[in-house]
Amino acid sequence: MNFTFKITCTDEKGLVYRISEVLLENGLNIIKNDEFVDSKKSLFFMRTEVEGIADPNKVIARLKDQIGNCEIELSSNKPKDVVVFVTREHHCLSDLLIRNQFKDLNFNILAVIGNYENLRELTEKFQIPFHYISTENITRDEHENLIKETLQNYEFDYVVLAKFMRILSSDFVSNFKGKIINIHHSFLPAFIGANPYKQAFERGVKIIGATAHFVTNDLDEGPIIYQDIIKVTHSKTAKDLAKLGRDVEKNVLANALKLVFEDKVFIDGNKTIIFE
Amino acid sequence: MNFTFKITCTDEKGLVYRISEVLLENGLNIIKNDEFVDSKKSLFFMRTEVEGIADPNKVIARLKDQIGNCEIELSSNKPKDVVVFVTREHHCLSDLLIRNQFKDLNFNILAVIGNYENLRELTEKFQIPFHYISTENITRDEHENLIKETLQNYEFDYVVLAKFMRILSSDFVSNFKGKIINIHHSFLPAFIGANPYKQAFERGVKIIGATAHFVTNDLDEGPIIYQDIIKVTHSKTAKDLAKLGRDVEKNVLANALKLVFEDKVFIDGNKTIIFE
Amino acid sequence: MNFTFKITCTDEKGLVYRISEVLLENGLNIIKNDEFVDSKKSLFFMRTEVEGIADPNKVIARLKDQIGNCEIELSSNKPKDVVVFVTREHHCLSDLLIRNQFKDLNFNILAVIGNYENLRELTEKFQIPFHYISTENITRDEHENLIKETLQNYEFDYVVLAKFMRILSSDFVSNFKGKIINIHHSFLPAFIGANPYKQAFERGVKIIGATAHFVTNDLDEGPIIYQDIIKVTHSKTAKDLAKLGRDVEKNVLANALKLVFEDKVFIDGNKTIIFE
Amino acid sequence: MNFTFKITCTDEKGLVYRISEVLLENGLNIIKNDEFVDSKKSLFFMRTEVEGIADPNKVIARLKDQIGNCEIELSSNKPKDVVVFVTREHHCLSDLLIRNQFKDLNFNILAVIGNYENLRELTEKFQIPFHYISTENITRDEHENLIKETLQNYEFDYVVLAKFMRILSSDFVSNFKGKIINIHHSFLPAFIGANPYKQAFERGVKIIGATAHFVTNDLDEGPIIYQDIIKVTHSKTAKDLAKLGRDVEKNVLANALKLVFEDKVFIDGNKTIIFE
Repeated sequence: MNFTFKITCTDEKGLVYRISEVLLENGLNIIKNDEFVDSKKSLFFMRTEVEGIADPNKVIARLKDQIGNCEIELSSNKPKDVVVFVTREHHCLSDLLIRNQFKDLNFNILAVIGNYENLRELTEKFQIPFHYISTENITRDEHENLIKETLQNYEFDYVVLAKFMRILSSDFVSNFKGKIINIHHSFLPAFIGANPYKQAFERGVKIIGATAHFVTNDLDEGPIIYQDIIKVTHSKTAKDLAKLGRDVEKNVLANALKLVFEDKVFIDGNKTIIFE
Repeated sequence: MNFTFKITCTDEKGLVYRISEVLLENGLNIIKNDEFVDSKKSLFFMRTEVEGIADPNKVIARLKDQIGNCEIELSSNKPKDVVVFVTREHHCLSDLLIRNQFKDLNFNILAVIGNYENLRELTEKFQIPFHYISTENITRDEHENLIKETLQNYEFDYVVLAKFMRILSSDFVSNFKGKIINIHHSFLPAFIGANPYKQAFERGVKIIGATAHFVTNDLDEGPIIYQDIIKVTHSKTAKDLAKLGRDVEKNVLANALKLVFEDKVFIDGNKTIIFE
Repeated sequence: MNFTFKITCTDEKGLVYRISEVLLENGLNIIKNDEFVDSKKSLFFMRTEVEGIADPNKVIARLKDQIGNCEIELSSNKPKDVVVFVTREHHCLSDLLIRNQFKDLNFNILAVIGNYENLRELTEKFQIPFHYISTENITRDEHENLIKETLQNYEFDYVVLAKFMRILSSDFVSNFKGKIINIHHSFLPAFIGANPYKQAFERGVKIIGATAHFVTNDLDEGPIIYQDIIKVTHSKTAKDLAKLGRDVEKNVLANALKLVFEDKVFIDGNKTIIFE
Repeated sequence: MNFTFKITCTDEKGLVYRISEVLLENGLNIIKNDEFVDSKKSLFFMRTEVEGIADPNKVIARLKDQIGNCEIELSSNKPKDVVVFVTREHHCLSDLLIRNQFKDLNFNILAVIGNYENLRELTEKFQIPFHYISTENITRDEHENLIKETLQNYEFDYVVLAKFMRILSSDFVSNFKGKIINIHHSFLPAFIGANPYKQAFERGVKIIGATAHFVTNDLDEGPIIYQDIIKVTHSKTAKDLAKLGRDVEKNVLANALKLVFEDKVFIDGNKTIIFE
């Protein structure tokens, strides 16, 4: 059986020694190990895949004895449970529904929450519950409270903003720290804000891109997980760019989720450490 | 013999007909033709490569009769004459000197102008004159006047800013409209300004890039010719990013110059039309 | 109203002139024009987008008078009608069904033909007929005859082989010249044949790719439309490579179809001419 | 002070523990650690960067006590000493000479050996000795013997074949196992053999690439270090492809050498393990 441990610590000498001692005691063989020290912040990040027969909880208990002040996370390769938020655009949701249906990504979609009705039909084709929570005639706080009520019905690991075009409040975000992933419609930090493809067209860029990131207080400023781009030419209209951009967005989101759902991503302040 | 015509016009019906009539009259065969209309601005751009025996000046005279209000440019595939401006970094200059030496780019470097002495030795290895024009103890205007004086010794088609870290005045730039090409140390419009790689590091981006563009009044806002990127990871320091960035910069500049020096680039306001 | 003409001809002087004359006579304005001469074969390819009010059939009739020996194709931007062939893998079909549902590609899927039953459910979710034509206990000829019978119920422009793992006979292919598009599970011409990802793994490549091409007599040798790659590392197993490869395959197929369905692709022997 | 250890071992439990114990005993802090097990071959690869004050030879002696059967390599970040072999093409050599001059790569070029005279002038511009060893009127064995004699004057870590267009004998190669790096003019395993760009042109590919690899008995079959590609279109001639290919070749070679010279590459049979 294979486990993956993710360990985050204040850096000090001997951490690898003490961790590997525990693993050896428990008869575990390390088959892939990645470690990185952010020397500026003196933070230690380690991801270790082991094989062998052992009670993971016993291992964690021993690790806690040895490196008590560290954050230790065990991943049993269990699929992550996910709620998806959408607005009106289908492309990221479609891709996630297909990947969910065919187990192409290490996750289960528990539900989709939308502030429009138009993606209900698509969602329900795949036997996933769709919750329509309109923003009409209510404040953002009221809207977020309705979302929170709905979320209480689900035990989820992550919320994925799959082209959810509302800005979540700091209060909402702080309830789910490191658990919300967004796809941003441009190559951050360029073209922050509305109509990025129109902005890109006006500027005459030769490249457009997308960025997937964890959501912190500010929608576009959280730790970046994955970015990619495609090349474009003068012959593309703003509408063409938006269309091409949708393909980049959906691919970037899928790549970022793959990394997160395989427990390869650590958050380090406003950055990510990724062991591929 | 092959010629290339570049024609820019206010769009109207019949332009292709009238142009192709002149070419046919002169016994020329069109072997590659690209045309694009910027319909917002109602501008017509055409690039046509022809083969055949004809006096190009006679052809241009006839074209002027037919489409008098158009800008008509003849390119005989003659290498472009270029003056290169540098500051202290060698990587773009090195690449251009090598390409010049081995005729890998359709250009001749006439001279290099630097505001430091350190690139003289490299430049002179390749028998290219190096003009040291210091900025010390003089105003920007005085510095630019010294540059202009030096430029008067050369009949050049283009000025290439190969990591020239001074901002040229509007006045200087307006003297050489569409003739100055710059390499910018980031993927515009992200990270405008100083220390882009430090900015990129702080932001934790997963991609860094570079942008080559024509220089207009504002150093970083001219029509973009070429952009490219590379992927990076958390393990790169700001210094690593700068080093990787240098490779991108030199490749982006070479690609942009290749397009310009093969007469494939039109300027359309703050954008470029590129027929590859 | 906009039309697109695609013209293929033996090259001779005056073609552009005679074509543009007809367009002008009919009051049409050329808004995008691309032309290329394959000088080795002396073949002329032209794609021209025009705007204006005219009877396209009248225009074609006049073009035939003027350039009689040429192949002239009119595209009214009408979506292409398509039959999709599949075997067992879903990823390309899923992508096409989603794009069909949301009109993200200029096509209509008329039907899906599969030699397994497993993709029926997915296909029918999107109200597309699924025809199961097993290969069991019959010869290839018999199987192809059954397919041909089914195809007779549809007026289609293209057949798309979306991971159809059977080799079509020369006879079958010759019935649909230039009308069958395949996605090949590797970066041709590397790793032709079975288990390309295992081959790639054994060879330790750092890049894997996919190729979309028109099908000619030999499944893997037709004119290439689009290719792309992703970078991989030593830590990927053959199974991981196959999984990553599926994403490349589906993206490459979608990009190729976009080009073909927007009438941007000409076939020139075993190559394609593509005006983007 | 920072060291890097590279350790290759038959896999067994407790290796990380025993290694990290030695490092801790010696007061060393692990700042970056990568480990990978090739489970098919049961081989363990580890690269560890440490900081601290210690006598590396003492550390290695202790490591040998602990994990005696392993291959242990210490890298003190000292630049690698390199001899470059060339034939007639300049582009890879030019790039290496520039990087050597400006310390852009962790290496020193000791000498260049060429079977033509034409690259002498370029090499000597940079004060590097150039040895002309012609192949005329002598057998391959005689030629290789002359090369070996010249090599005896240099204490080198690596030989770089920078477009050396001769096939080295098994005998020669076996003298320098894992020490010869070649740049191959195509995206292996496609287009093996002569005139790859002509082959690519004839096939109408939309991508061309290059491969850097260690040389084993067969010139094109050694462990791949780095590969990259660029996209091309129908409008490129075989000559254009060759020219574009040169830029890819030189970039791929530089990227591969960067990895090798920073001690990030392990050889694992006919593959490489690379910890970036």
